[in-house]
Amino acid sequence: MIIGVPKETFPRERRIALVPPSVLSLTKAGLEVAVEAGAGVAAGYSDSEFEGAGARIIPDRAGVFSGSDAIFQVRTLGANPEAGAADLELFKPGQVAVGFSEPLTALEEMKSLAERKVTAFALELIPRISRAQSMDALTAMATVTGYKAVLLAADSFGRLFPMMMTATGTIKAARVLVVGAGVAGLQAIATARRLGALVEAYDIRDAAKLEVESLGAKFLELEEVAESAEDSGGYAKAQSEETQKRQQELLADGVAGSDIVITTAAVPGRKAPVLISEETVSRMAPGSIVVDLAAERGGNCAPTKPGECIDLGGVAVHGPVNLASEVPFTASQLYSRGLSNFFVHMVKDGEFQIDTEDQIVADTLVTRDGEIVNARVREAIDISTGTTT
Amino acid sequence: MIIGVPKETFPRERRIALVPPSVLSLTKAGLEVAVEAGAGVAAGYSDSEFEGAGARIIPDRAGVFSGSDAIFQVRTLGANPEAGAADLELFKPGQVAVGFSEPLTALEEMKSLAERKVTAFALELIPRISRAQSMDALTAMATVTGYKAVLLAADSFGRLFPMMMTATGTIKAARVLVVGAGVAGLQAIATARRLGALVEAYDIRDAAKLEVESLGAKFLELEEVAESAEDSGGYAKAQSEETQKRQQELLADGVAGSDIVITTAAVPGRKAPVLISEETVSRMAPGSIVVDLAAERGGNCAPTKPGECIDLGGVAVHGPVNLASEVPFTASQLYSRGLSNFFVHMVKDGEFQIDTEDQIVADTLVTRDGEIVNARVREAIDISTGTTT
Repeated sequence: MIIGVPKETFPRERRIALVPPSVLSLTKAGLEVAVEAGAGVAAGYSDSEFEGAGARIIPDRAGVFSGSDAIFQVRTLGANPEAGAADLELFKPGQVAVGFSEPLTALEEMKSLAERKVTAFALELIPRISRAQSMDALTAMATVTGYKAVLLAADSFGRLFPMMMTATGTIKAARVLVVGAGVAGLQAIATARRLGALVEAYDIRDAAKLEVESLGAKFLELEEVAESAEDSGGYAKAQSEETQKRQQELLADGVAGSDIVITTAAVPGRKAPVLISEETVSRMAPGSIVVDLAAERGGNCAPTKPGECIDLGGVAVHGPVNLASEVPFTASQLYSRGLSNFFVHMVKDGEFQIDTEDQIVADTLVTRDGEIVNARVREAIDISTGTTT
Repeated sequence: MIIGVPKETFPRERRIALVPPSVLSLTKAGLEVAVEAGAGVAAGYSDSEFEGAGARIIPDRAGVFSGSDAIFQVRTLGANPEAGAADLELFKPGQVAVGFSEPLTALEEMKSLAERKVTAFALELIPRISRAQSMDALTAMATVTGYKAVLLAADSFGRLFPMMMTATGTIKAARVLVVGAGVAGLQAIATARRLGALVEAYDIRDAAKLEVESLGAKFLELEEVAESAEDSGGYAKAQSEETQKRQQELLADGVAGSDIVITTAAVPGRKAPVLISEETVSRMAPGSIVVDLAAERGGNCAPTKPGECIDLGGVAVHGPVNLASEVPFTASQLYSRGLSNFFVHMVKDGEFQIDTEDQIVADTLVTRDGEIVNARVREAIDISTGTTT
């Protein structure tokens, strides 16, 4: 079986789906690897490193698709709807596609992949069970994103993060508030703490309190706003608009008193909850910074504009998009390991087998034999077309 | 006595020489303060904050000069030779000027200040004695610069700084080498350590070893290259070209094996020593980063271009200029405290007195009554004109 790794085509995407050390793992499992020329350069991996690890370099993109049985991408069609559309003609019926693909929202793209008879796996749908942890590329990307968000904030902040006692006087530590203590949020807390900031954090899930405190941050205790905040996978559940409003009110003083606010609240497959109003941002001191990691899903902060940094009375509101891609070497390395672990899991004795009795396979397989076979994706389609009650 | 604070005019300078809390210290000492409108905005200090602290806001620059007895600047003439030249006509004979002014190299500008009969103090010349520590603005700026250099490196690096054990595998910590363990170097070491990097450091002064090690970094022990490396003020002394070559050779392996190299070696009033050759940079792995803090004085790294980031076979060589200005709030705060402590030291019972018996005053006073009165500056002029043997 030949694995093809084309260059990513999403604007400013610098990652690559497979790095040279993973090529070794795949070849050991009996697979061959073909990489598009130059595909790893933006992430810091040269063609010669791929060749050294046993991959073939293919000069053209079409050749990678036509000569491979499976295509590994960071962003397959759904997660790259515009530039990725051109790949649709390159996919061969029966070909396997693995990557992030926004399967719960990019429904038209999922239908297109099914029509093209592609066997598509969406890496976002890896279940949060312990034997799948080593395949969890989404969590790995959130780690990178949380780290980078703090660097972005520190770099645009006019002050130092750490408290310092100098001969000319004492400098106060920066006050950082992290909203949403999932993987990205926890990494942001850890990184801000490392840099010496005073960190507070809030999460609607009570379970987050211990994790936040174990990182040396203070958990912001707000009045309880929802009865059930966590789904069975440990992700935050969507909340009513009323609950969001109540959270906004309760969070407002914490936000207004912080120098840096990093928001990370997301609900899989949904628009992000708006937890900070424009009025609250305007209460922050000039020179303060908001980094809204939910920008791609509409933002946790009302004024956020995806891909832009806006100035609101001296407060900079950053809406970064695809932040993991800005630490491309490490992000590719972690993504590649997750994807390889996932794929090799389906290879028995050198043969690729789709065992839908296996939860990991069943949860991630989206399209097969011309059909959308994934229960969650079908449910999303039913809801969007109103065919459910 | 009225202190005037004009807006800084050096390109991209964001600092201001005096911040609102220092206005209070000066007025307490019997002085008045007049600030040019908008002078603090880029650093995060509004006109209304200055007014709240008791300063007057003056709408035009000429008005600040004509209405003041002393002018406080971050960059007075010598440190702002182009845009600052316009100030020369605004200075009044007998007016006091305090700020950084590159007195040992900007010799023509020192002569111009003398001709204009300005009484100029150069803050770089504050002696390194304990009672002057609270006035040492240069050291304070070096602290900010060392911190910011690490953020710059971390932000442009394609990997994470800290070692991480994730479910998909372990990420190695970044290897950082800091060359020159003065104030900027020590702060760079501390910041890189905070972020989780493995840090090595080198300094030609043996005395630096303990300081480096106390920050958790490894001191790079090289064969001894010079007999006397430190001057009486604790600064590194200039070394012969031969010694520099020898250091280059000895440092080469350490540089080539590092992911990030931050160089901070400077000798006051001299061109920076070139400690890293272009050939050594070419031995670094693609994706590596050099931040050359000596860029303004020619650079410690041969290929450095001041104010630019150049790519040498995948290695990014940053030659940042005026980095302290990119953390403008804190840098202004520290500068302002140092300058105010210095100035108030010369005010007795509300009267400004120049007591040249005081080492702090004698060391910093450059021009007075139409003459260059500073021994070190006169020596530099003698050397440059060949009137010394």
